[in-house]
Amino acid sequence: MIKVLVWNEFMHEKDKNCKASEIYPDGIHGVIAEFLGKEDDIEVRTATLDDENCGITKEILDDTDVIIWWGHCGHSRVPDEIAAMVQEAVLNGMGAIFLHSAHKSKPFMRLMGTSCSLTWRESDDMERVWTASPAHPIAQGIGRYFELEADETYGEPFGIPSPDETVFIGWYTGGEVFRSGCTWSRGNGKVFYLQPGHETYPTYKNPVIQKIILNAVRWAKPVFRSENCMDCPNLPSVQRAELL
Amino acid sequence: MIKVLVWNEFMHEKDKNCKASEIYPDGIHGVIAEFLGKEDDIEVRTATLDDENCGITKEILDDTDVIIWWGHCGHSRVPDEIAAMVQEAVLNGMGAIFLHSAHKSKPFMRLMGTSCSLTWRESDDMERVWTASPAHPIAQGIGRYFELEADETYGEPFGIPSPDETVFIGWYTGGEVFRSGCTWSRGNGKVFYLQPGHETYPTYKNPVIQKIILNAVRWAKPVFRSENCMDCPNLPSVQRAELL
Amino acid sequence: MIKVLVWNEFMHEKDKNCKASEIYPDGIHGVIAEFLGKEDDIEVRTATLDDENCGITKEILDDTDVIIWWGHCGHSRVPDEIAAMVQEAVLNGMGAIFLHSAHKSKPFMRLMGTSCSLTWRESDDMERVWTASPAHPIAQGIGRYFELEADETYGEPFGIPSPDETVFIGWYTGGEVFRSGCTWSRGNGKVFYLQPGHETYPTYKNPVIQKIILNAVRWAKPVFRSENCMDCPNLPSVQRAELL
Amino acid sequence: MIKVLVWNEFMHEKDKNCKASEIYPDGIHGVIAEFLGKEDDIEVRTATLDDENCGITKEILDDTDVIIWWGHCGHSRVPDEIAAMVQEAVLNGMGAIFLHSAHKSKPFMRLMGTSCSLTWRESDDMERVWTASPAHPIAQGIGRYFELEADETYGEPFGIPSPDETVFIGWYTGGEVFRSGCTWSRGNGKVFYLQPGHETYPTYKNPVIQKIILNAVRWAKPVFRSENCMDCPNLPSVQRAELL
Repeated sequence: MIKVLVWNEFMHEKDKNCKASEIYPDGIHGVIAEFLGKEDDIEVRTATLDDENCGITKEILDDTDVIIWWGHCGHSRVPDEIAAMVQEAVLNGMGAIFLHSAHKSKPFMRLMGTSCSLTWRESDDMERVWTASPAHPIAQGIGRYFELEADETYGEPFGIPSPDETVFIGWYTGGEVFRSGCTWSRGNGKVFYLQPGHETYPTYKNPVIQKIILNAVRWAKPVFRSENCMDCPNLPSVQRAELL
Repeated sequence: MIKVLVWNEFMHEKDKNCKASEIYPDGIHGVIAEFLGKEDDIEVRTATLDDENCGITKEILDDTDVIIWWGHCGHSRVPDEIAAMVQEAVLNGMGAIFLHSAHKSKPFMRLMGTSCSLTWRESDDMERVWTASPAHPIAQGIGRYFELEADETYGEPFGIPSPDETVFIGWYTGGEVFRSGCTWSRGNGKVFYLQPGHETYPTYKNPVIQKIILNAVRWAKPVFRSENCMDCPNLPSVQRAELL
Repeated sequence: MIKVLVWNEFMHEKDKNCKASEIYPDGIHGVIAEFLGKEDDIEVRTATLDDENCGITKEILDDTDVIIWWGHCGHSRVPDEIAAMVQEAVLNGMGAIFLHSAHKSKPFMRLMGTSCSLTWRESDDMERVWTASPAHPIAQGIGRYFELEADETYGEPFGIPSPDETVFIGWYTGGEVFRSGCTWSRGNGKVFYLQPGHETYPTYKNPVIQKIILNAVRWAKPVFRSENCMDCPNLPSVQRAELL
Repeated sequence: MIKVLVWNEFMHEKDKNCKASEIYPDGIHGVIAEFLGKEDDIEVRTATLDDENCGITKEILDDTDVIIWWGHCGHSRVPDEIAAMVQEAVLNGMGAIFLHSAHKSKPFMRLMGTSCSLTWRESDDMERVWTASPAHPIAQGIGRYFELEADETYGEPFGIPSPDETVFIGWYTGGEVFRSGCTWSRGNGKVFYLQPGHETYPTYKNPVIQKIILNAVRWAKPVFRSENCMDCPNLPSVQRAELL
């Protein structure tokens, strides 16, 4: 069983003046939890900004295999301590999937160490997303490319460390390109960033996007989990070389 | 002084039925040698498929800091021994810049170890090339993006090992994307691949492309050059640990 | 079922004057095939230099999930065409594990593109191998380090492209260090190199080494397999875009 | 002129009970500033924990090409805002060299995103440091290896993202290995970590260590410097494309 925690700031969807409230009345996390919850090997929980401690405790993270993170306007409302806890859980082995505007979320930025900046535009551009690594587990069943009728445009340069693998690269009618799907190892954990998914488009209802997220969950599940990877143990020499 | 050897198969340009003969009457190598030759810190030579041994000997390579390679229909006419000599020179420290269809040249394929495959189409698509690594020496003076009115379209997946740095990513009106400028370390040598430059377009007369190639030459010049990096020396222990 | 092909040049072990003949009377491949064969999810075949075509055909490779390669004095006796077939099978998705002196085997060198050189010494040095990536699937169950009472010493610099992951780093009583376990993606295939295993030591009978090889087999099994990754397809535009 | 800022917490050296006070009476920064200051192309300043704002302001960082950082017991005394300013300066293009126990300094940890943990022991072990990347600018003039009669032992696993290049790997008489010299690109800046240099050993007076630090300063100087890489600009489409 893969235990997934879907975290969403859940702000836009509660704003009746925002289109997001029509598309995702129960929140982006609701839609993601729903399609993942149908899988036999996955157990889903959700948490949002309004929950106490953002719905995140060390106990919950210890009991989570893969966290999925969506955030945008509420990035700064996530306390540093919570972001540090998520980062540390990843370093100890928890998988993490960051969606769309989560490129500027605290946990993602802490894990990357870089600006995570990009250029953007809301202009209903069509996006065609190409598979650059056809053998990557996250790309299985996706095909050579897929299209999103409209989503927010993100553009290079994307301020990230060189990805371990560039799984997807996006093309937009506005003329931009973007590394839309990238992976990194961080400590014992695996990290995946996926670009599509602005709150005013029904991107997370798209079966291809759902397939990518499902693939990513299975790919990111921990191989090994340490207790306290932040420690620096003072260890005696096993046997000094000159004693041989 | 950076000693550059511009290698070109020089086939299309001699074919009077090919548009390349009008654009590059003295060969692609001629145009590249000309603009590089204007630089005070660069000394240029050229070589082509018709020269004896393809114009390549160990002595010439030992006296070359950076090789630039353009090839297409004549890849298989380059003897394996010549390709191996070029590869070995790179591993010993020589820089190498592979242009456009040289992605399937023997020296590039030997250095990458992968298929170097891609999809392609000759359809006069416009290309917009984005700078993905603004701080890379090769991207200096290029700006956020530049455009080529028409060139051959190359598409992902590009069968390369994950680049050390993805300097440029291309966008085409036909809907493709491509990692258009990539770098790799190979042994003591630096390798740069640049995608634009089909023989039927005046790409190498474009000042932006010329600036990129010039930047790449300066970036790729050797830091250190070994004599025989292919050797596996049998070396005595400096001092066995138990002797301390 | 993971179909494994254990390839061994099988030269030293047939030489009655060589210690290898006592340690591995049925060949290094025999010992490896034996311990892998005990696993329920693995099906093993072997092939050697004496077999017709080195025991390798396209059909056999198409039916192989992971190849394991041991070679030393017979590297040059493997025909280039066979080495190319193995390389291409990896690029299409087959996993490959290269053991010890196979660092200079044709298939490994073709996949790396580099010298694959190192320094070496046969002097019965003790080796301590450290786990540098505790969460890597290949390191599971190995612990912080393990020791080999004696094996051939390999030393840096190791002429490889920067590994995707450095799983193990070795320490020797003679004062050398070596990146003893490294991984790379090559095309659709996964590659692992493991340093221990000189023919005159019973290294492949060591349970820790066997565990590493078993882990590597399971890690390297194909996710996706293409038919002909060497192709460069000429593809029409899905849908042309026109700049407004 | 390369403007270098040598930052040192300067705690141990002021403690008369600590050996560091004898070896570095004017601080580790004093010794580093002295040998760097002899170079014609380098201009050095220093700053310490006791200075106002740790001696660091945005103006000073804007006027710094390369920062060198030594810290140990005082890591937590560096305010988060100062660490964030240093990180941001690196992302904008400033080079950064982290020495020894600075692996757990706030700026380094922020740039890596990982635990930066390791094992350690103070036991006067001899260290032999091997050059793993002989062509790297930082390794020029260092030779195959060098030795330190005694320094603190650091051991793998080192909790870092896979380095862009592993320049040095260390061997210790106590049986440990460590990736002693590693590089990473972070945003527009270059980062180098160097392991030797415990405060109770005269490591920074060693000419080989000085040569490495000097090489690193020249290697890390900025190629390109941005004003505000943390920004995410909302940019209009240059020219919209319409699918036909």
